[in-house]
Amino acid sequence: MTTRSLFLLPGDGIGPEAMTEVRKIVAWMNDARGTGFVTDEGLVGGSAYDAHGSAISEGDMAKALAADAVLFGAVGGPKWDGVPYEVRPEAGLLRLRKDLELFANLRPAICYPALAGASSLKPELVEGLDILIVRELTGGVYFGEPKQILDLGNGQKRGIDTQVYDTYEIERIASVAFELARTRGNRVCSMEKRNVMKSGVLWNQVVTETHRAKYPDVKLDHMLADAGGMQLVRAPKQFDVIVTDNLFGDLLSDVAAMLTGSLGMLPSASLGAPDPKTGKRKALYEPVHGSAPDIAGEGIANPIAMIASFAMCLRYSFELIGDADNLEKAIANVLEKGIRTADIMAPGCRKVGTAEMGDAILAEF
Amino acid sequence: MTTRSLFLLPGDGIGPEAMTEVRKIVAWMNDARGTGFVTDEGLVGGSAYDAHGSAISEGDMAKALAADAVLFGAVGGPKWDGVPYEVRPEAGLLRLRKDLELFANLRPAICYPALAGASSLKPELVEGLDILIVRELTGGVYFGEPKQILDLGNGQKRGIDTQVYDTYEIERIASVAFELARTRGNRVCSMEKRNVMKSGVLWNQVVTETHRAKYPDVKLDHMLADAGGMQLVRAPKQFDVIVTDNLFGDLLSDVAAMLTGSLGMLPSASLGAPDPKTGKRKALYEPVHGSAPDIAGEGIANPIAMIASFAMCLRYSFELIGDADNLEKAIANVLEKGIRTADIMAPGCRKVGTAEMGDAILAEF
Ligand SMILES: CC(C)[C@H](C(=O)O)[C@@H](O)C(=O)O
Ligand SMILES: CC(C)[C@H](C(=O)O)[C@@H](O)C(=O)O
Repeated sequence: MTTRSLFLLPGDGIGPEAMTEVRKIVAWMNDARGTGFVTDEGLVGGSAYDAHGSAISEGDMAKALAADAVLFGAVGGPKWDGVPYEVRPEAGLLRLRKDLELFANLRPAICYPALAGASSLKPELVEGLDILIVRELTGGVYFGEPKQILDLGNGQKRGIDTQVYDTYEIERIASVAFELARTRGNRVCSMEKRNVMKSGVLWNQVVTETHRAKYPDVKLDHMLADAGGMQLVRAPKQFDVIVTDNLFGDLLSDVAAMLTGSLGMLPSASLGAPDPKTGKRKALYEPVHGSAPDIAGEGIANPIAMIASFAMCLRYSFELIGDADNLEKAIANVLEKGIRTADIMAPGCRKVGTAEMGDAILAEF
Repeated sequence: MTTRSLFLLPGDGIGPEAMTEVRKIVAWMNDARGTGFVTDEGLVGGSAYDAHGSAISEGDMAKALAADAVLFGAVGGPKWDGVPYEVRPEAGLLRLRKDLELFANLRPAICYPALAGASSLKPELVEGLDILIVRELTGGVYFGEPKQILDLGNGQKRGIDTQVYDTYEIERIASVAFELARTRGNRVCSMEKRNVMKSGVLWNQVVTETHRAKYPDVKLDHMLADAGGMQLVRAPKQFDVIVTDNLFGDLLSDVAAMLTGSLGMLPSASLGAPDPKTGKRKALYEPVHGSAPDIAGEGIANPIAMIASFAMCLRYSFELIGDADNLEKAIANVLEKGIRTADIMAPGCRKVGTAEMGDAILAEF
């Protein structure tokens, strides 16, 4: 029997509650389908800091590196606002991304038809919206050196961060975007600020050259990132795949997520390069939403983004495409039936808690 | 008689057409009110490049430095896409900002009631919207060194940009934001990415300390820039004044501008520090929109953003507050009457060209 290893990092806030619902689905798949998932679990973020003073332990890092896939909940909360920069909750997530070399962050911004009304945009602008943002995740200003605060004396300090991109980093993320575009609308829009950033000039050149050399069949556009933000708000359906750097991707994917009105529903996948021997990619799956400390522990959090992240895991790490499709369809069906957690409650719908939502999706699966 | 010097830099695309409408208003004010405006004019952007191979000449830089205020149209267009980075059209604007030390960029995102329907957001979310984005304009990744593309050999290049902020730069822009908040809703929201950027950590500290020491009466909040982008889309009316750095300000102010549905109507002011002797600030006023090369020269461009920028000039450079109010009211009245340029045309309104729109506003002034 195949075994498939999953390493679970529920994290802080609503992370653990949401992860509980994924565990149910995993157990059911093992029982009913013999999928052979083997799960282990660790600590990350504030809960790791509380346990052993760092945002993720070496032991858990080793397990994450060895697993077929990592499922990540969420990290952070006001409890850890004062902890030193190096061990703040986010450091655990950033270390996972960097050490697992998860350079390709896939963030679908889709609008569930049942929720089009929940968007702050006019419904006709978001109905049927289906954008895939491909964000570079291991480079740019997130990791470039120097990154420091200097004391200049006289009460003056200097904060420095460095945006760095090498040709190969741009080439590999562009290739991921073009490959994925071929499975969808066959269009890529690349966003940077080449009019003020040298890294943007290089980004633009390398994307253009990668396109010319390997993907001339895909339609490629370029947009300045500020204009891109505008266009996302003005007419989001014009986009198919958007490829952009780590920092612009952070901002633009959040704006895109919010547009859909489905923020609590959106998953993400972070993928590494295929292993030269096995062809397998390291991977981490996490909801786009945060840890929502204000509602943690109350059993009312929406587990859909976490479950949809598991669907991406089935698709990208285990090639269980049929199961991924079915799980996504189960989510859409449950929403269609008017079953809602508090964050997406609407008149005429039935309000349920985290566990009930998980059960309802499992029942449709 | 007082003389007041204005240096006009119409630039490229629709810049010159829009500037013509401001010239009419200036002439009328001189005739009818004896305002004593003295105007001179120069070249910037692509038109400067065509004339003498740089994005702004030394002579025009000297005139900009000497003037009481600079009125700037727009720069750029496909014609200059291939020119070297150092002399690209934007370089003229960036040099003006830097050499005049225009560190404070004020970008009001207001929704003209007559245009609420034009927003892609639901009307109830934007009706009455009035946000002021205070963007740092002479620091950060726009100007930090190193900023270069290195050739690493082996076909690999490295693009580098540097985000740098010193305490004093953050302090002075925060002070501008707090001062302006006191004249409005008395609330400031500061945005950065302190969870991944050291400059963001320093930004957060200095804003907090400036608030504590000098502006404790103003309500201060902090938001991560990605969450800020989301909140702008979700519920923009929650904001009064937003203060943020150069790059985040570029993106977030464009998103905010687009939300209003009034993009072609939005002005901006870029201000320096008060001169220690005269108390006067160097200043440049420019529309938020770009050069729109596709419609340039057709006489159909919307001149409202340029005229509204002149209203900001009356307010901030010449303390002609009553005239500024009246000019802004004239714009609102003309819109209320259903007079529209093509970009904001709506059923039941009357479509006019650039000159007619300028005349209509002057008639209401
Ligand atoms: C938690 C934080 C470090 C992270 C980021 O900035 O990348 C988050 O905002 C995200 O988008 O995944
Ligand atoms: C033209 C460009 C250099 C400029 C910027 O990035 O600052 C523009 O986008 C703006 O917002 O004023």
